[in-house]
Amino acid sequence: MTQPASPATPDAASAAALEELLRVLPGRVGTDPELLRERSLDRSGQSVPGLPTAVILAGSVEDVQAACRVAHAHGVPLVTRGAGTGLAGGALAGTGELVLDLSGIDRVLEINTANRLAVVQAGVINAALNERLAEHGLWWAPDPASKAISTVGGNIAMNAGGLLCAKYGVTREAVLGLKVVLADGTLIETGHRTVKGVTGYDVTALMIGSEGTLGVIVEATLKLLPAVTGPTPTLGAAFGSVQEAARAVADVSAAGLVPAAMELLDRPSLDALASHTGTDAAPGADAYLLVQTDGASGEAELGAIAEILRSHGASCSVAADQDEAHALFALRRELFPSLEALGGTLLVEDVAVPRDRLAEAFAGIRAIEERHGLSIPTAAHAGDGNLHPTFVVPGAEVPTEVWDAASELFALGLELGGTLSGEHGIGLLKRRWLKDELGEAQFALQRGIKELFDPSGILNPGKVF
Amino acid sequence: MTQPASPATPDAASAAALEELLRVLPGRVGTDPELLRERSLDRSGQSVPGLPTAVILAGSVEDVQAACRVAHAHGVPLVTRGAGTGLAGGALAGTGELVLDLSGIDRVLEINTANRLAVVQAGVINAALNERLAEHGLWWAPDPASKAISTVGGNIAMNAGGLLCAKYGVTREAVLGLKVVLADGTLIETGHRTVKGVTGYDVTALMIGSEGTLGVIVEATLKLLPAVTGPTPTLGAAFGSVQEAARAVADVSAAGLVPAAMELLDRPSLDALASHTGTDAAPGADAYLLVQTDGASGEAELGAIAEILRSHGASCSVAADQDEAHALFALRRELFPSLEALGGTLLVEDVAVPRDRLAEAFAGIRAIEERHGLSIPTAAHAGDGNLHPTFVVPGAEVPTEVWDAASELFALGLELGGTLSGEHGIGLLKRRWLKDELGEAQFALQRGIKELFDPSGILNPGKVF
Repeated sequence: MTQPASPATPDAASAAALEELLRVLPGRVGTDPELLRERSLDRSGQSVPGLPTAVILAGSVEDVQAACRVAHAHGVPLVTRGAGTGLAGGALAGTGELVLDLSGIDRVLEINTANRLAVVQAGVINAALNERLAEHGLWWAPDPASKAISTVGGNIAMNAGGLLCAKYGVTREAVLGLKVVLADGTLIETGHRTVKGVTGYDVTALMIGSEGTLGVIVEATLKLLPAVTGPTPTLGAAFGSVQEAARAVADVSAAGLVPAAMELLDRPSLDALASHTGTDAAPGADAYLLVQTDGASGEAELGAIAEILRSHGASCSVAADQDEAHALFALRRELFPSLEALGGTLLVEDVAVPRDRLAEAFAGIRAIEERHGLSIPTAAHAGDGNLHPTFVVPGAEVPTEVWDAASELFALGLELGGTLSGEHGIGLLKRRWLKDELGEAQFALQRGIKELFDPSGILNPGKVF
Repeated sequence: MTQPASPATPDAASAAALEELLRVLPGRVGTDPELLRERSLDRSGQSVPGLPTAVILAGSVEDVQAACRVAHAHGVPLVTRGAGTGLAGGALAGTGELVLDLSGIDRVLEINTANRLAVVQAGVINAALNERLAEHGLWWAPDPASKAISTVGGNIAMNAGGLLCAKYGVTREAVLGLKVVLADGTLIETGHRTVKGVTGYDVTALMIGSEGTLGVIVEATLKLLPAVTGPTPTLGAAFGSVQEAARAVADVSAAGLVPAAMELLDRPSLDALASHTGTDAAPGADAYLLVQTDGASGEAELGAIAEILRSHGASCSVAADQDEAHALFALRRELFPSLEALGGTLLVEDVAVPRDRLAEAFAGIRAIEERHGLSIPTAAHAGDGNLHPTFVVPGAEVPTEVWDAASELFALGLELGGTLSGEHGIGLLKRRWLKDELGEAQFALQRGIKELFDPSGILNPGKVF
């Protein structure tokens, strides 16, 4: 890569970059304050000071290359965004920064049934892709809760997860290769169109989850699965205690059963849902577990799971038909809007712990609630131990005691052998805890990788590290 | 990491390193010429000039750290090996180099059913691990043909594959975290014990398949699956043409069917097998396809597959029972010994192509045979398009015309949208073609990663790059 010119002052550099962008990308550069504000935010509820200098509405891979070349030449920060559904502040942009919006490069370039792969541009909407794939009997497994509005590129840049990971894997396992624009505008192709491939280092995996800090993912070759057809047997189970529900979940896993989804809601979550939707999924219970199986032995598996749950005192109710099953999951998806309806800002945390520590995690969260006098409604993708404890903050500013409680939460996750972030990423909001998890030596190596890929430090600076 | 002292001459450096190793690792350093010769080779059939200075028979992680510290301090190359079953020359060692043998650190540290994970040291034998796991109803999916003798650490360092990848994924998808000793002896822990985790860059994936060039993998946290129980319906299908068989394979995939294994043998492979074992699996046929399904709908799936194969003119014979099924796969596993029995050295290639280009790959291989007057027996893990064209070379030296033919083979693989290596790695034998696949810009980045992790260049130098 070529080195950038020596930087001018930040203001002058931004102004010069804007001038050049307007010249080389006519009609693709927006500076309207309304647009700038909208494209400077994500769903973290947070913001950074000021407005970005411009939004580049990329219409092609060449536009992305041009944007990188200009930003690199002037040493101006470039914040790449998809649909802006991130919850960790990874796409926040402010004064002196450029926003590179990929939502406009959204073509499905190839759907290949024999190789079970698709080649798509970064801006394709997750759900729209799966609608297209369904016509071919195919399916891309990553299933973030935001799928109706989030992009495939954002999904990959965050290594997003969702409800189906315990059975169908995380995004990393569903990507064969990438086209990536490097900081200086160079286009590289990583990975393969084949199922296997071990030529050199796995740069594809390195890019997945890198949150826009190593390069701009413009195209992806996706590994598809045959569409899962047939019924998806579903049950809801009410538990007297959320910890007992968590122990039941661990027993399901220990029995070798692999449901497609297993979602756990605690009482504060059920209360929020009830107040917003009018429906309490488990009146009088402390927790509610939603389980769905699929495939040829789905019904037998659900029966075996129900037996385990009942041995933990659960009251199980099997959905009578697919409509009822859909309704149960639709209610689960209402949790985020229900919490938003409580008013203020949501800080959605994302710790993941080993499945057999889930009960301890819930006990720890209840203890944090008590110590700080806070309510922390918590839902979990229980099959993979991924918890979303949520702080509902009155204003836009997160009070110190909430950060203190969040800090205790991260410490709890790490103490239980878990991780800071199961699927939302580090972004801006969790970077102060990153070194605790990685350790000094690995942190230094990761910083080294960042410097190698982005020597001028223009790609989403200040995020992750 | 600390920087090494300025290097002495290679000879003096090696001698000084040996002296220090004998002092800090008493009883762990071998210099017997027989041992040196044995531990300087792998299964590539190739060698490098001279004998290594010493073999370090590591008995603990601390031994590995000490070995790295000494090698780093003296700037002496360190070649890490597991069982030495590699086919690309990645573990070859010669004059002035140290061999770090991990086969002695072979403890299974934890088997955890609720979290479906195991923690093991690098030297554990693949098959031995799965025997232990079977007692708990668990299974680690990576299934290299060498599993009876190869190590988990070697498997991970190569991102090895095997027969079951199309359905159960490659090694990368079966590893949650690693303990890695860096070049200077620092121990880092990568990844998680959780199914999900997106904190920082995916250094775990970067290490997987890095062939001992970035660090020494000493311990792994493995993602397990519930053991697959019940029958594994199996069939053998004889085809009039190997290209027709390849087209049938593509149609099986396109129909959304996912057999556990699908192995294709061409006529030269069948001939070698027949001459060694006395059994021709498909007399009078040009190719033989072995298909195995599993799970609740395994029988129905096999029926649907047989129908597709017959529509391509195959004569299918379903195994009557599990013994017969085992016998069919046992015959497949005799291919490598059968080729070895032809005398001389084997150069086992490893190109992978998209499934729907498999027929063209076989046509191309036949053309290369004709052009060079060579026989290239070729077996394929057909479900994932991974071919093993094999050159049987009379002596230890590979003749120029064989390299020329191999070169054409790699070009063919890349031209068909494939890759140089599906599962064996680059090692020493394929590095001259690596840049063709990666392109200049990505090649430079990968070199940069190597320099970042191993600034003194002691970790398996000359391999991969």
